[in-house]
Amino acid sequence: MAGSTFQALPGFRDFTPRECAVRNYLFETWRNVARRCGYVEYETPILEDTGLYLKKSGGELSSQLFRFEDQGGRDVTLRPEVTASLARIAATEQRQYPKPLKWFEIGQCFRYEKPQKGRGREFHQFNVDILGEAGPGADAELIALAVETMLSFGFVEGDFVVRISDRNAWVKFAQARGVSDEVMPDFLNLVDKLEREKPEVLTEKLAKFGATLEEVKSFVANPQDAEGSFQEILTDLKARGFGKFVELDLSIVRGLAYYTGVVFEIFDSKKSMRAVAGGGRYDTLVKTISDGAVDMPATGFAMGDYVIRNLIEETTHAAMQMEVWLKRNAAGCEVYMVIPDETALDHALGLVTELRRAGISVDLPLSSVKVGKQFQAAEKCGARFALIVDAEFPSVKIKNLGNRQEEICQATELVAWIKQRLTEPDGPLLA
Amino acid sequence: MAGSTFQALPGFRDFTPRECAVRNYLFETWRNVARRCGYVEYETPILEDTGLYLKKSGGELSSQLFRFEDQGGRDVTLRPEVTASLARIAATEQRQYPKPLKWFEIGQCFRYEKPQKGRGREFHQFNVDILGEAGPGADAELIALAVETMLSFGFVEGDFVVRISDRNAWVKFAQARGVSDEVMPDFLNLVDKLEREKPEVLTEKLAKFGATLEEVKSFVANPQDAEGSFQEILTDLKARGFGKFVELDLSIVRGLAYYTGVVFEIFDSKKSMRAVAGGGRYDTLVKTISDGAVDMPATGFAMGDYVIRNLIEETTHAAMQMEVWLKRNAAGCEVYMVIPDETALDHALGLVTELRRAGISVDLPLSSVKVGKQFQAAEKCGARFALIVDAEFPSVKIKNLGNRQEEICQATELVAWIKQRLTEPDGPLLA
Repeated sequence: MAGSTFQALPGFRDFTPRECAVRNYLFETWRNVARRCGYVEYETPILEDTGLYLKKSGGELSSQLFRFEDQGGRDVTLRPEVTASLARIAATEQRQYPKPLKWFEIGQCFRYEKPQKGRGREFHQFNVDILGEAGPGADAELIALAVETMLSFGFVEGDFVVRISDRNAWVKFAQARGVSDEVMPDFLNLVDKLEREKPEVLTEKLAKFGATLEEVKSFVANPQDAEGSFQEILTDLKARGFGKFVELDLSIVRGLAYYTGVVFEIFDSKKSMRAVAGGGRYDTLVKTISDGAVDMPATGFAMGDYVIRNLIEETTHAAMQMEVWLKRNAAGCEVYMVIPDETALDHALGLVTELRRAGISVDLPLSSVKVGKQFQAAEKCGARFALIVDAEFPSVKIKNLGNRQEEICQATELVAWIKQRLTEPDGPLLA
Repeated sequence: MAGSTFQALPGFRDFTPRECAVRNYLFETWRNVARRCGYVEYETPILEDTGLYLKKSGGELSSQLFRFEDQGGRDVTLRPEVTASLARIAATEQRQYPKPLKWFEIGQCFRYEKPQKGRGREFHQFNVDILGEAGPGADAELIALAVETMLSFGFVEGDFVVRISDRNAWVKFAQARGVSDEVMPDFLNLVDKLEREKPEVLTEKLAKFGATLEEVKSFVANPQDAEGSFQEILTDLKARGFGKFVELDLSIVRGLAYYTGVVFEIFDSKKSMRAVAGGGRYDTLVKTISDGAVDMPATGFAMGDYVIRNLIEETTHAAMQMEVWLKRNAAGCEVYMVIPDETALDHALGLVTELRRAGISVDLPLSSVKVGKQFQAAEKCGARFALIVDAEFPSVKIKNLGNRQEEICQATELVAWIKQRLTEPDGPLLA
């Protein structure tokens, strides 16, 4: 890290222009998908009362918090996730908005974990929630958004699958065996470990709940027999044309305590079968956070930026789509103004204002620089056109930097000329 | 605050959808202006090593920091501003990018101050910087961006003025009177208070620097006689057509210690003559932050979201422009699908996917709801069209919610039909 005695903190990223462009690709895709699906944007505070998170999660995240006392003696925490704040805001604001609330947020979250590949101490999360609608139509709508998100990143059939489950199916399974509400979370945690725990350990632990490993495996293998709302959700998603992207999988329960019903995860189906994103119903959270004042069913979905970016980069067609976007959007400007000498400097500066005011992105040399260097600067910043303004003004020359061809244009017609050329892929001169 | 036992912390804002839309208007305008002017986006970490800020400012902000010890025992701080981080990143990354660096950031900053109207404990800041160019061309380019920002928010001549000054003019004034480098910051601080301090106090304090109040006032009154690069900057800005928005004003020095040359502030010229935004040269900061490893001249500009939003809301034409944007962008969807009964539910769901995949924003009822309520939902979410899908499918009905007229369309032609209508202001039926 030559060049500075200071560095970013461990697990924190500097979004240099190159990295920021990738971030913007993710953000723009997320935002467009959410809007297309009828969600409106909100944002919760980055710093909150620590009690909010402790109340929500029952302490699940408490060892990972960036938690401190502020100058006013308040116990505060950098948000580790946004759903607790969402529940707080929804409880206070819900009367101002028609139901159901379809809200999304793109925001940074903070967890003190060991930094490693694919995980930092901060990450960006795309959160999408539907509040105020208890039926399976909301779950299907949310899962449709999850699929739409993957398709918008360029993933296709075979790249991913959404596995849908229902915690209530397991609750009924357990209740039939006499499992009480108090130990239900322990039972669900055990189901969550089905694929990671040794069979002998599972057998022993399941026995305490009056179940055998065989019964559990048979239950997972036959989801069509289970009671749950996922059958209606599956029918809905098939009508949407998304049947090929979803499947029932009762082995999914998701770790967090606050889920109450249908849960789902997007899996990378090619490589490591890792979970890319997930979500589910949390019908009791708003009531908990509002101390019973507002009772509102809810279902939510979250996707982090680390995992999806890795998956994009590992998947050729998704990576190519991102590269095309980056090339088109990462350019410093559309038009670079070349000013060979000072004779027309004033005219050149006037044109800069005129073009920018017309919505065209323009850069220019900020001191006396040789013409060759100016053309180099135009190339380096990714401009499509060099605009040469010299003593011939009001005649100006435009060079298409893609095919090196030049045209002459009158200054008065310049805005219309450039706007037209910018709508054509690489300009008409390439034809 | 009925509805939740928790509230946002004092000085922190909940960006509900309505507030988030205003935030997005500011962000989108800032981002578009920066890109039009040839800047690329970056973002610094929200949490940094506290030493970075102490080193930069000499402790100026140290009483206002959200500062704490993280779980690893590090002394860390929520960013009170981004320039220190920018200097850190620029020093490390500058070799990767062509010079000058023209970089911008839109980010949240945190200062523990007393919350009041127009000031919170967090705020969003638009930061624009040019690094690696020492000449006045860079200052002019940056001030042009400041003007362009105001014009893009809909402000016009007479609403605001950019006052330009040069600290070096004051340094020369003071050096001629024998003021040493050590006490120069004290002298500049005194000049900064010219308009707020009593004349008798000023006279007494100026005497210590070998100057009289009369000399100082005469110096401020005749900026054309002062030595400084602002004359070239003014000439440049006049050529850009911005002469009417700028003026020389040597009473501006800006408080922060790190400024080294030309400084400027945008003033609201109608009401309170308050500073809306400002910036200036800080040619030594990169060297300081990098412990001498990288020496890079720099000039920067920052605008906060609180003050500009207030000014927009107080200025009729700027407020109207924002309202038009909000109305167009705050809608939950473009098309709301009305499903009178279940006979065509599958077809309707298939159409939802088709329209969304084509880039059209679509919302729909998520449970069985009476038709009248569905139309109400369409109105409430601000949709332009209601799309009625019933037993007549593949014939579907489209109702323009602006003028209440209906048309029949075939499902296969629907995407093209809607896309065409959405390009026309309020659809062709209004004509």
